[in-house]
Amino acid sequence: MKVELIVIGSEVLSGHTVNTNLSFIGQTLDRAGYTLSRETVLPDNHEDLKSGFAEALKRSDLVVAAGGLGPTIDDVTRHAAAEVFESSFHFNETVAKHLRERFGEKFPTVEDQAAVPEKAIPLLNNVGTAPGLIFQEGKGTLILMPGIPAEMCPILTEQVLPFLKKKFPLKEQIYRRSLHFFELSENVVDGVLRTLVQKYPKVDFGIYPGMGVVSVTLAAKAKSASDADLLLRKPYSALEEHFATNCFKSDSGQIEEAVQKLFIEKGWTLSCAESCTGGAVAARITQHSGSSGYFLGSIVSYANELKTAALKVPAELIQEKGAVSEEVVSSMVKGALDLTGSDFALAVSGIAGPLGGTPEKPAGLVWCAVQHKDGEPHLWKLNHHLPRQLVILRSVNSLLSNLILYSKQYNV
Amino acid sequence: MKVELIVIGSEVLSGHTVNTNLSFIGQTLDRAGYTLSRETVLPDNHEDLKSGFAEALKRSDLVVAAGGLGPTIDDVTRHAAAEVFESSFHFNETVAKHLRERFGEKFPTVEDQAAVPEKAIPLLNNVGTAPGLIFQEGKGTLILMPGIPAEMCPILTEQVLPFLKKKFPLKEQIYRRSLHFFELSENVVDGVLRTLVQKYPKVDFGIYPGMGVVSVTLAAKAKSASDADLLLRKPYSALEEHFATNCFKSDSGQIEEAVQKLFIEKGWTLSCAESCTGGAVAARITQHSGSSGYFLGSIVSYANELKTAALKVPAELIQEKGAVSEEVVSSMVKGALDLTGSDFALAVSGIAGPLGGTPEKPAGLVWCAVQHKDGEPHLWKLNHHLPRQLVILRSVNSLLSNLILYSKQYNV
Repeated sequence: MKVELIVIGSEVLSGHTVNTNLSFIGQTLDRAGYTLSRETVLPDNHEDLKSGFAEALKRSDLVVAAGGLGPTIDDVTRHAAAEVFESSFHFNETVAKHLRERFGEKFPTVEDQAAVPEKAIPLLNNVGTAPGLIFQEGKGTLILMPGIPAEMCPILTEQVLPFLKKKFPLKEQIYRRSLHFFELSENVVDGVLRTLVQKYPKVDFGIYPGMGVVSVTLAAKAKSASDADLLLRKPYSALEEHFATNCFKSDSGQIEEAVQKLFIEKGWTLSCAESCTGGAVAARITQHSGSSGYFLGSIVSYANELKTAALKVPAELIQEKGAVSEEVVSSMVKGALDLTGSDFALAVSGIAGPLGGTPEKPAGLVWCAVQHKDGEPHLWKLNHHLPRQLVILRSVNSLLSNLILYSKQYNV
Repeated sequence: MKVELIVIGSEVLSGHTVNTNLSFIGQTLDRAGYTLSRETVLPDNHEDLKSGFAEALKRSDLVVAAGGLGPTIDDVTRHAAAEVFESSFHFNETVAKHLRERFGEKFPTVEDQAAVPEKAIPLLNNVGTAPGLIFQEGKGTLILMPGIPAEMCPILTEQVLPFLKKKFPLKEQIYRRSLHFFELSENVVDGVLRTLVQKYPKVDFGIYPGMGVVSVTLAAKAKSASDADLLLRKPYSALEEHFATNCFKSDSGQIEEAVQKLFIEKGWTLSCAESCTGGAVAARITQHSGSSGYFLGSIVSYANELKTAALKVPAELIQEKGAVSEEVVSSMVKGALDLTGSDFALAVSGIAGPLGGTPEKPAGLVWCAVQHKDGEPHLWKLNHHLPRQLVILRSVNSLLSNLILYSKQYNV
C-alpha cells in the first residue's frame, strides 16, 4: 500500500522552522510497516492544501497530514480537507466537553476548536487544544494531526497507529536493520556494500554519511520478523565482522547511545571538559533517558579563567601554548578526572569559527583528549573547514568515537 | 514565479535522518526573493525521481533538488534527471581535473563523479566529491545539489544564487519581518493579530508557537525594501508596542541571539550551573559565533557530588531538600557566580524524565534561578508533562527569557 505524508506550514517552507515532524512520523510509520513513499510540505493556503490533498489521495491509499489545525488565523487545514470530502461542520459535544474539562468552562476558542467536519472522526488531543481528524469516506483515507510535536506524537502513537493496524492490516512489511560505523570513510564502506548487493539481491542497502559516522541500513520485505531475519542475518553479520573495530550499534544511529550502553554495562563513569563544543557533548549525552547512570557532568570552560578555576589548568600553560593546544586539552582532561572522580574523561578545545582563527591555528582546528583515571591520555586533533555548527558536531562525534575505541583496552 | 524544492533520500522518508536541508535552502531562497511554494521528499528510486522531477517542472518555473548525487550504489538522482532532459553523459575534464587536484591522481571514483549529463552545467564542489548540476534546456530549470549540508551550503550560496539572480531577476519579492515573544500564550498574541489583519489587508501574518516562544511573521510583496517598509512598519510597531515587555528580536527567532546582543552591548558576562538541561543551555548559547564575547561557561553538574565539588552546594542541603528544589538551585546559581565571577548566572535542576519522577516531584518538574552578582536571586519552577527533549527545550527557553526580564532592572 502507498502512504504519504503532508506537512503544512508556511514557516517550514520559508525555513523558519525545522521540520522535525517528518523524522518522527516517518520513523513511527516505518516501524509499524507503513513506509512513506513521499512527503510534501505545503503552505498554510486554502487552495494549495485542497489540491495537495486531492492529488495525494489519488496517488496513495493513505494520506497522513500534520499542521495548521490550531485556532489561529493562519490555520486553514480543517476547512481545506472538509471541502475535498464535501463535508460541512458541526459542533462536537465530546470535543467541547474534553476542552472545557481541561481548560475551564470559559475556554475562549471552544466554539472554533470543537467545530468538527461531519464526515470526520475526531482524535482527542490531551496536550493542546486542536483535535486530530480522520476522514475515510469515498475519496480515501486522510488523517489530520496537529503540527506541534508535543501534541502530534501521542495522537500518532496512541490513536492513529491502532486505527491503521485495524483498517490496513499488513501481510508483508519492510524490516530494517541498521549498523553504524565511526571514523570510516563512505567510500570504504561502499566498496564492501557493492559486493554484498551482488550476493544478496533480495536485500536493499542504503548508506548514509553523517559527520564522522556512516550508517548502513539493510531492508527486506517479509511476512514476519523471522522470515526477515533469514534474509538479513548473513549480510548484516558480514558487514559487522568486516568493520568490527569501527562498528557500533544504536537504535537512533547516535553514537552516545552506544556509549551509554557500554558504560552502564561496565559500571564506568564519564565526565567532560569542554571548550569549543560549548556543552554540546554533554547535551548529546544527556538527551537520552538513563544517562545519569554513567554521566557525572561536564565543565564547559568557555573562558580561559574558568579552565584555571574549575579544571586547574595552569594560567601560564594557556598563556604559553594557547587554549587550543595539545598541552591544554591534556591538562583539561586531567582536571576533569581529578574534579569529578570519573573513570574516563573527555576534553576538547578548538576554534569553532568562523571567527577567531589565525594562519597557524585556523578556524576548524580542534584538539581532543580522552583518558582513563589510571591511564595515559590519548590526544588527537581535527581540522575540518566546515561551518561552525558542523565543526561542533564533527568534534562531538569524534570524541564519542574515540572514547569507545580508547575504552577497549579496559574492556576485559 | 513558482519555485519548489525536492529533497531526495529514502533515509529521510524512513525518518532515519532529519531533513535540515529544507530549513537552510528555504531560508536562503526566501531571503533572495524565491520563496518555496512546495517541498517534496522522494526516495532514492529512479522511477519516483523521474516522475517527481517531471511533475515539478510542469508545476513550477524553477526546481531545486538536493541529495542522491554521490558515487555510492543508492545514488540515482543524476540519471533520473538526465532521462527527463533526454541527455546522455560525457566525461567532463574540468570536473575530473578539480577532483584529481583535491583527492590525488588515483582518486577511485573519478570516472563516475566526472560523468556529467551533456545538457547540464556542472557546479564544482569544493568540499566533497559530487558536483552539482544545472539543467535548463527545454523542460524548464532543474538544479541538482549534493545532499550533505557541508557540501550543499556553499554550492547554493556561491554558485546557485548568482545564477538565479541572473536567470530570474525579480520585479517584486516578498519581504518579511519577524517579532518574537517569550512567556506569552499563542491565544493572547492571536487576539491582537486578528485586529491587525483587518486593519492591514496587504500584510500577511503568520504565527508560530514553539515551547515558550511565539513568533510572528509579517510579510508583504513589494518592489523594493523601502516600499515594503511602508507596508510593514505600522503593524510591526503596533505589535512591538503592545507586547513590549515580552518582545525580543532575533534573526533566527532564537532567544539566545537576543541575549547575546544585549549582553555584548552592556558588557555583561554570563555563566550557568546546569543539571537536568545537561549542557543544553550552554550548547544553545555557544552555537552562535561571538558568544565567547559574554559567555564564560557552564558547570554541568549532572551528579550531585559535582554540584558540591564544583559549585559548593552543601551535600547536606541536597540530602535534606533534594537536588530538585528551590534551595539547591539557589545554591547552584550562587556557586556559578562565585566560581566564574560572571555578572549574571543561571541555574537549573529538574527531572527531565520520563524516569526519575515521584508523586511529589513528577517528571517535568524543573526549578530555575537567575541572579546578578550584587542582587537577589529570582527563583521559579516549571511543570510541563512533555517528552524529555521538550522538557529540556522548554527549560532552556524559560531560563533565557527570564534572564532578559530579570536583567531589565540592571539595564540603565
